[in-house]
Amino acid sequence: MTDVPKSHPRYESLRIRDAIVAGVKRGVTSEHGLIAHGRGEAYDYLLGERTHDFAVAAIEASARLLKQASHPVISVNGNVVALVAADLVRLSDALGAPLEVNIFHSSDARERAIRDCLQEHGAGEVLMPTRDAELDFIDSNRRFVHPEGIFRADAIFVPLEDGDRCQALRKMGKAVVTVDLNPMSRTSRTASITIVDNVVRALPLLLQTLESPAPDEPRPEFDNLACLEAAERAIRSRHD
Amino acid sequence: MTDVPKSHPRYESLRIRDAIVAGVKRGVTSEHGLIAHGRGEAYDYLLGERTHDFAVAAIEASARLLKQASHPVISVNGNVVALVAADLVRLSDALGAPLEVNIFHSSDARERAIRDCLQEHGAGEVLMPTRDAELDFIDSNRRFVHPEGIFRADAIFVPLEDGDRCQALRKMGKAVVTVDLNPMSRTSRTASITIVDNVVRALPLLLQTLESPAPDEPRPEFDNLACLEAAERAIRSRHD
Repeated sequence: MTDVPKSHPRYESLRIRDAIVAGVKRGVTSEHGLIAHGRGEAYDYLLGERTHDFAVAAIEASARLLKQASHPVISVNGNVVALVAADLVRLSDALGAPLEVNIFHSSDARERAIRDCLQEHGAGEVLMPTRDAELDFIDSNRRFVHPEGIFRADAIFVPLEDGDRCQALRKMGKAVVTVDLNPMSRTSRTASITIVDNVVRALPLLLQTLESPAPDEPRPEFDNLACLEAAERAIRSRHD
Repeated sequence: MTDVPKSHPRYESLRIRDAIVAGVKRGVTSEHGLIAHGRGEAYDYLLGERTHDFAVAAIEASARLLKQASHPVISVNGNVVALVAADLVRLSDALGAPLEVNIFHSSDARERAIRDCLQEHGAGEVLMPTRDAELDFIDSNRRFVHPEGIFRADAIFVPLEDGDRCQALRKMGKAVVTVDLNPMSRTSRTASITIVDNVVRALPLLLQTLESPAPDEPRPEFDNLACLEAAERAIRSRHD
């Protein structure tokens, strides 16, 4: 953070923005990733930059889904690693789920920079894209995955996903948990569970939920579309 | 545009995004400019990506204000030049107003790249920041302006402005016309006239309005805050 005091009303947003720009400098974030981050900033601003009840409900449902999965995998791109690398490593440990790099604008150098950044934050092995396993229903380079990771996963935690790949994963019968600040995006509408929240707030909450004992009483079925409706209402209404 | 067909539902948005990324490659757009563009994309999406009546009213009021100014100046940054360089040159000719480069994250190289880009699109002299004239009420490098440009201007057209400088210009008694997709921003709320629209749609409309004969009947006083209220209502309501 260059010269913005903690008292600045936009301090937290500016701190996060600097983390993303630092991600470009070290080669983990792409130019298109910066634009995507800006879109997220606008939606977060309209949400009042806080975690709403619909996000808490989605986080609880996500914790249950990921705990029950037999082979969960965490799919990461440059933006999430620039923002929450340490939390991703903790999540991988908590779930016993491998981290796998999978980015939209493919680049070997950026994939390696993302892996290095995760390992600096304590990750062990990080799975990388291979030519040995391909997803169906998708033409882009994102179809190349690791045979022991996304390819055979039954549940994938993939924050800040793109619509095409989310659809492909769902068509392959995999459960997809995403974090997306735009409840109207194709990803949000296609995922099994969408946490409409800033990944910087959602990841610590997900970790906390995973580490707490599960409540005894049965939970109601999670309804993703109802959750997205509530999120859109929050964006469309004024906050004080 | 790399590989997106014109039939793609997001074609126009993706075309504009590519123009901004091309701006980074040629050194006119900064990393923070990309994030700002992303924020704009989100607000534009919520506005239904069309020019609303409140924007048309603001454009008409802007045309009157800029025509009546005795020394109007057009202040440009990297994002506007990446998006609408040719329209800025036409506007400069239509108003007899100089173009002046003034950017948030100062860099001599980027200032020169912006000037070069304008001149490739037909601009004559482009005013550059100097140490000979300083704005009051502002600490950042943006206070350094050209003595024959922004410094002595009575009206400034400055699309995609930042809040601090907009406030400083207003405190110095200058009229400020801006284009900003976020009606809640400090710039929007401080400017004399805020055109809440995508600069890619607003500039051609402003040019067209300037080139049309002024209507005979007197116009009602323009109320910027009422206009911003209408824009926020449009963002907060659903579109079909």
